[in-house]
Amino acid sequence: MQNKVGREIPDAYLNDYALYESTKIGNPTIQKVAPKISVVKPGDEKLVASIEEAIDLAGLKDGMTISFHHHFREGDYVLNMVMDVIAKKGIKNLSIAPSSLADVHSEIVKHIESGVVTKVTTSGLRGKLGEAISNGLMDEPVILRSHGGRARAVETGEIQIDVAFLGVPSSDAYGNANGYKGESVCGSLGYAKIDAKHADKVILLTDNLVGYPNTPISISQTDVDYVVEVEAIGNPEGIGKGATRFTTNPKELRIAETVNQVITASPYFKDGFSFQTGTGGAALAVTRFLREEMLAKEIKASFALGGITKPMVDLLEEGLVEKILDVQDFDKGAALGMAKYEQQVEIDASCYASPYNKGAVVNQLDVVILSALEVDTKFNVNVMTGSDGVLRGAIGGHQDASNAKLTIISAPLVRGRIPTIVQDVTTVITPGDSIDVVVTEIGIAINPQRQDLIDCFTQAGLPVYTIEALQKEAEKIVGKASPIQFTDRVVALVEYRDGTLLDTICQVKD
Amino acid sequence: MQNKVGREIPDAYLNDYALYESTKIGNPTIQKVAPKISVVKPGDEKLVASIEEAIDLAGLKDGMTISFHHHFREGDYVLNMVMDVIAKKGIKNLSIAPSSLADVHSEIVKHIESGVVTKVTTSGLRGKLGEAISNGLMDEPVILRSHGGRARAVETGEIQIDVAFLGVPSSDAYGNANGYKGESVCGSLGYAKIDAKHADKVILLTDNLVGYPNTPISISQTDVDYVVEVEAIGNPEGIGKGATRFTTNPKELRIAETVNQVITASPYFKDGFSFQTGTGGAALAVTRFLREEMLAKEIKASFALGGITKPMVDLLEEGLVEKILDVQDFDKGAALGMAKYEQQVEIDASCYASPYNKGAVVNQLDVVILSALEVDTKFNVNVMTGSDGVLRGAIGGHQDASNAKLTIISAPLVRGRIPTIVQDVTTVITPGDSIDVVVTEIGIAINPQRQDLIDCFTQAGLPVYTIEALQKEAEKIVGKASPIQFTDRVVALVEYRDGTLLDTICQVKD
Repeated sequence: MQNKVGREIPDAYLNDYALYESTKIGNPTIQKVAPKISVVKPGDEKLVASIEEAIDLAGLKDGMTISFHHHFREGDYVLNMVMDVIAKKGIKNLSIAPSSLADVHSEIVKHIESGVVTKVTTSGLRGKLGEAISNGLMDEPVILRSHGGRARAVETGEIQIDVAFLGVPSSDAYGNANGYKGESVCGSLGYAKIDAKHADKVILLTDNLVGYPNTPISISQTDVDYVVEVEAIGNPEGIGKGATRFTTNPKELRIAETVNQVITASPYFKDGFSFQTGTGGAALAVTRFLREEMLAKEIKASFALGGITKPMVDLLEEGLVEKILDVQDFDKGAALGMAKYEQQVEIDASCYASPYNKGAVVNQLDVVILSALEVDTKFNVNVMTGSDGVLRGAIGGHQDASNAKLTIISAPLVRGRIPTIVQDVTTVITPGDSIDVVVTEIGIAINPQRQDLIDCFTQAGLPVYTIEALQKEAEKIVGKASPIQFTDRVVALVEYRDGTLLDTICQVKD
Repeated sequence: MQNKVGREIPDAYLNDYALYESTKIGNPTIQKVAPKISVVKPGDEKLVASIEEAIDLAGLKDGMTISFHHHFREGDYVLNMVMDVIAKKGIKNLSIAPSSLADVHSEIVKHIESGVVTKVTTSGLRGKLGEAISNGLMDEPVILRSHGGRARAVETGEIQIDVAFLGVPSSDAYGNANGYKGESVCGSLGYAKIDAKHADKVILLTDNLVGYPNTPISISQTDVDYVVEVEAIGNPEGIGKGATRFTTNPKELRIAETVNQVITASPYFKDGFSFQTGTGGAALAVTRFLREEMLAKEIKASFALGGITKPMVDLLEEGLVEKILDVQDFDKGAALGMAKYEQQVEIDASCYASPYNKGAVVNQLDVVILSALEVDTKFNVNVMTGSDGVLRGAIGGHQDASNAKLTIISAPLVRGRIPTIVQDVTTVITPGDSIDVVVTEIGIAINPQRQDLIDCFTQAGLPVYTIEALQKEAEKIVGKASPIQFTDRVVALVEYRDGTLLDTICQVKD
């Protein structure tokens, strides 16, 4: 069966999944779920001596689902540390449901090989783990979800977490925790908050045990079963690794300048507008250009959203952004802002981006700048599979933030010998329906659905192309790419944020 | 059947209720519940023109359960305002489940008489409403719950709220709300938070509509369906009405001084101790005496809990209390503190006091001072029915905070011609098992279960009596009271905080 982005879905998945229909999710009625908990009575203590003891007390067994957060990104120590203890205990057949995975988590390969882990759901897959899974490591396909889609899945019970292992930069012995204080700050605990509310058992790991009551209360004692003190939970320097750098690349700077022109020429650039930029060289450069325009035109943003970087916190300090709604911090500088600025406000993943609550913040977003590995002539975006078909990306908030009134993809025509603007993306991660403008170094293409923006940007004298023209320009530079060779075996399922099946990813041929 | 506090429970309730067994609630496994919601999609607006429109959109129908919070106490405008609209619409047979009711809500009598309201659950019943119910106004008994018990009942689905009407001192048009800002501040929204998380439909009423995003986010947009702007939601001056006054009564001052001696002579009075005082003349005086002792002995409290009064916020400002965990503010001064002090931290009713989560703050409480209408020789306390048997009180956090390591009841031997220390309380609200010390103007009585405290306070030279001796002293003053005349008809059920049936209250004889 073909779904509504033209992807062929193997019959095997038609029983378990509804096919992707539309980016318009409507107003369905949703029964949320809540955990089954064991009451902690007066006098009970939660502080235990080791991860192993916490695992025993939590009753972790073969076949259960466990979760982790990825606030430390490449600096995370918790997942590997906990998985090692679990493996040593001989527990098998676990589903792991981290909010995302990074290069640092390549050790999971060995736990899959030994049968400790048999199912994975995540937002991102990279490095050796991504390669191994693309080469057929697992029997069960990985389920890839956006940050909002994961929050939805946890809140509706599609992901039912038996035990959550959550690394926290500070906690008291009764489980009140936040990411603001300590040697290993990560700032917002936006993803962890959802797990703490929904897992049957919640184990906190901290390297910073503080007196009771620890405040602010990002994770509450009411949701925590056990607290374990460990040597270190993560390296804050690793949070920004590989993600945030200021570009000096002229092509990236040209793209950033054009993105800035698109924003400032749009009807959304006015006092009180809101935006999300994400990471990457161009995105950070956009923030700089935008700052100058905001100063020049005396425009202030009502809020900035997302994964937050230090330059965004600087805009807050400068008064150009009134508030930051912060689900995750993308570097140590942003993480440190949480303790410093009252207007940098922690929100959870559901509030950030779930399609199935009473309105996430992405619903209120004016402008978002997102990246792409590939964009095709239907404006579909791939941020998950590389030019070799291998899993090396993350959905992140891509599908979710594309709900903005103006969704901009910033991408070069080509990267080295690899085209970015293509006829058909290898994998559809965000449907073209929710993409408004693609910005490249030579010019922009506007989704034909948005005649208003075509008129607006043409009038503003921006270099407007059709997406087909951009694709041809890319092809001129690097020629026609030969198609990637996949087997028929599905190694990953891509969910749309509402849980419908958007695409499948197959094993690559050797 | 008799339950474990010796109360005769009519057979009619044995099917629906387990009988009260013990203040020790153990570690039961609890399935929590979550609401069934309608998704709010991008572009949907929540701001509606009137309460009536919000009621229509929310689909309020005959037989449903609606809720309100009581943060404005005697200053609340919302409940009466909403009930009038509902009554005009001709909706009947509603259950109302406010977190509590005050004198100002006497208008409910007419809604019960007209069949708009047929069931009530609350923490408090006073004034004309209490009288009318005690005189047989309702067919169905009112269910009386503690604040922690109500949070438990909401979180386990015993109270299933169809529509919550929540007055909020500030909100944006998308439903982010707090009690800190505006003309009508109430401070913490601790009770409202639980309803917002669990009601299927949530309607906010505000007299202070602010720009998006409103922060701090005490109630989140993710939980709110509609926002209605109204003229005024409440009068902050009414919050403290009748509750907080500084006593100059020599008897009350003597009691307060003795309470202070009990606390400071106890093993719990040391650096880092925690306490809750509540309201009432003696309680406030205790705070003053305690302050002097803390200064003299260089002792600081780690946290103060509860309903918070301005004198407690003063201790925070002075540095004698490190943090305030604030479920409710008992006066405007305390409410204003929320915006001012980072260390005055809002917590919800479940975190404050629910017996069925992973540990409420009451579990961590060292010392609590509570009041009583009656205390009996089994140390059982009544804070609900007056000497005429009429409903004129509130359970509040009484059952919950009695979990403290040192639970002190401060009460005069007699009030006018009415004895406070009695053979048997008219109504058991808090079982004697969780009461440690009763302090009167002539001396103290210690629960025989607490030999450690008997030794401690005798050694400290405190005027230690048996509870029977205190009861006899009271009887000497006012004589034997003639028993209250009740009919057999039950007008209210008293739940213990775990939902077991603790006592029943019958209709009074004319």
